[in-house]
Formats: sequence, structure tokens, C-alpha cells
Amino acid sequence: MPADAPRIKLETTRAAGAEVVTYDRVKESREEIGAKLSSDRGLALIKPFDDPFVIAGQGTAGLEISEALTPDIALIPGSGGGLASGVALALPKTRVFAIEPEGHDDITRSLQSGKRERNAPGIRSICDGLLTEEMGDITYELARTRFAGAVSIPDIEVQRAMAFAFRHLKLVLEPSGAIGLAAALTGAVDIKGKSVVIVASGGNVDAETFMAALKA
Amino acid sequence: MPADAPRIKLETTRAAGAEVVTYDRVKESREEIGAKLSSDRGLALIKPFDDPFVIAGQGTAGLEISEALTPDIALIPGSGGGLASGVALALPKTRVFAIEPEGHDDITRSLQSGKRERNAPGIRSICDGLLTEEMGDITYELARTRFAGAVSIPDIEVQRAMAFAFRHLKLVLEPSGAIGLAAALTGAVDIKGKSVVIVASGGNVDAETFMAALKA
Repeated sequence: MPADAPRIKLETTRAAGAEVVTYDRVKESREEIGAKLSSDRGLALIKPFDDPFVIAGQGTAGLEISEALTPDIALIPGSGGGLASGVALALPKTRVFAIEPEGHDDITRSLQSGKRERNAPGIRSICDGLLTEEMGDITYELARTRFAGAVSIPDIEVQRAMAFAFRHLKLVLEPSGAIGLAAALTGAVDIKGKSVVIVASGGNVDAETFMAALKA
Repeated sequence: MPADAPRIKLETTRAAGAEVVTYDRVKESREEIGAKLSSDRGLALIKPFDDPFVIAGQGTAGLEISEALTPDIALIPGSGGGLASGVALALPKTRVFAIEPEGHDDITRSLQSGKRERNAPGIRSICDGLLTEEMGDITYELARTRFAGAVSIPDIEVQRAMAFAFRHLKLVLEPSGAIGLAAALTGAVDIKGKSVVIVASGGNVDAETFMAALKA
């Protein structure tokens, strides 16, 4: 995990019995660290998004949605593209949009340019769970062929969506989990008159970050 | 509503189209105000807890629980006693406890003394939804015959339960809604080895009150 991951994410993962290896999000490559750990210790490497089984697992969110309805539109947090790809595969009749942080908008740019774009290294958003540098081979191909589009959202609107969820939904959302809601509230995706499902995942947010959103 | 009700409760009720009449919780009687409004305008008065239909409606929470399980113990916020009475009627094999704020413990004292006790007027808790002066005729009779017991919880433990719900359940609870969880976390009711359902209702909490709980 990045050393600057929310404390609650580090602590609850350790409390569940895991050994957590931290790294510097800007200076180090988690791909290299993962490959080395896997090789040195003879461990299986499970990639966070660019793996058919992981995408299929994330797609069960789409299956759950399909049990309730087939929405016109689904708004899904986007970073490596695994969750949005899985949902798009599970809901072929739904227009699936990946929602990503402003300044970290490689999916939006990739869909525009027709080739896989990268984000420059660095941290430009409070959405700590959505700061992947680029999509994977599989998720880029699925994004290109299955997504209706992608939009990017400024942090201030993410904070307003967190405050909206606090006030009206009584839900604790981390910034990355509130970005789909922000896309709906701001009109970044036009949802007027449509049935819409928003995936609000997850809730790994420290009190300081949450309180800053309530004050924003 | 009391003039010191959470702003979110006043605002969302007004936003739903209601005319809200406020009063001073310490100096005025809501029973008298309700009776006068009802009489002056020819309106039906719906009491908040001492009404068979209201208790039956609140008891649907118990029916929902019974669809999932019949717990050994249910921990229910207690004030006028309507919600706990309704749940106790719906779950006759469950030991139902009313949980109330420390210093505002008329249910606990009533069950001990065998007669209906009152709280002195005044505000002694952050649980603004649980500050009724006494139970009603119907709810006292149900409490006496159907409750397994009642316990009272200090505000600091209610705040810790709110922070626990934020951290682990990702739920926004108002103080009155977190008091049952506090009874479980503190051991005020012995739940070891038992199946337990906690009713965590509701989430009408202003940002300032919520942030104070996260810092407590």
C-alpha cells in the first residue's frame, strides 16, 4: 500500500492479519515491488485490476445491480478500470461511465485519443484510491469497447458529494467512493430523466479527511 | 419540535413541506401546544409514542428483524418507550432492553420501583431524540410487562459508539441512534455468546455534533 494510504485502511488491513508493505507512491513502483516480493518468496501475485478473475469478481457488483434493475446509466469510480469494466460486462444494456479525479483523467483522455494514455506520476487529488498511473492491457480494451464514456471531477465536488452522503444518505464515503455521486450531483454526466445506479465504494476515510469534507 | 432540535431535522422536515412549530423544551409543554393546535385548527393529533397505531407501526421494525432471525437480545433506544414496546410485541421470545441517556433514566427507575417515574425537566444529554419526560400510559404498561430491562448510558460512550459506527460500519448515526450500540460496546447489557440485534435509528445529526463525537 502507498505509505500515505488512509490510516484506517492500513490499520484495519493489519488487524485482519495481513503483512502490509508500504511504498512511496511518487518515487517507487508498486508493480516492481510486487514482482520482487512474488519472486523472492514464491508467492502468487494478484493484480488489483488487470486480471480477468479480479474483473469478474468486481463485475459481481453489476450482477447485484441487475437483480434489482437494468439502469439506463451506471456511474462507477474509475482508476485502473477494473470495477467499471466488470460492471460494464455485467450490464451490457447500461451506459457505464468511469468517473475519475480531475488532473488524473487518463481514462477520459484515452477514450478521446483512441490510445492508452498515462497520468504523470504525482498526487493531484484527495481520491487516494483512484491514483493509478494507467489502465491495464485488459481494462483498456474493455474501456475502449464497453464504456459509454468517462468524466473527471474536481476535489471540491467530491467533498460536496461526501457531505451530501453524510446529510441525506447517512453514509460514510471516502473521497474515491463519493466520486460517482459527484458526477450525478454536478451534472458532469447528464442523468435527467434516466434511471441511474451509482456505485459508492468505499468508506476507508480518516476522521480528519471526513471532517474537512463536511466543512468544505 | 424543540427549538434546539438538530438543524438538519428542522430543515429536512420543512423541505418535505411541513409547517414546523418550535417550542422551548425546558419552559413549554409540547403536549399543551399539540392539544391547542389540534383544537384551534380542527386537526387530528398523532402522539409520538402513546398511541396503539404508532406503537404498531414502530413494531414493524421488530417484524423486519423476525424475518431475519429471532435474536436472544434486542437493544432499542428508549424515551417514550414506543419503539421498544413495538419491537417487544413483535419479538415475544427476545429479551428487549430499552437504552436511555444517563441522567434521563426514567424507564430504568420505573422498572425498578414498579411505578411510572418521571425525569425532572431539563436537558442532560446530547441524545436530543430521547428526552421525553415520562412514558405514556400504554408504553409504561408494555414496558412493565414486556421489557427484559433498561439501562442508561453516559454521553461520552454514545459519542464513542458514533465514532465506532463511522469507522467500522460506515454509518452516520445521531446520538440517540447510537445509544443501543453503546450499550453493546460498553457491556452495559451483557451480550456475550448471545445473538443480538441493535436498532440504530436515526441519523439526524448536524456536522458539528458529529465531528465532536469523532474527536471525543
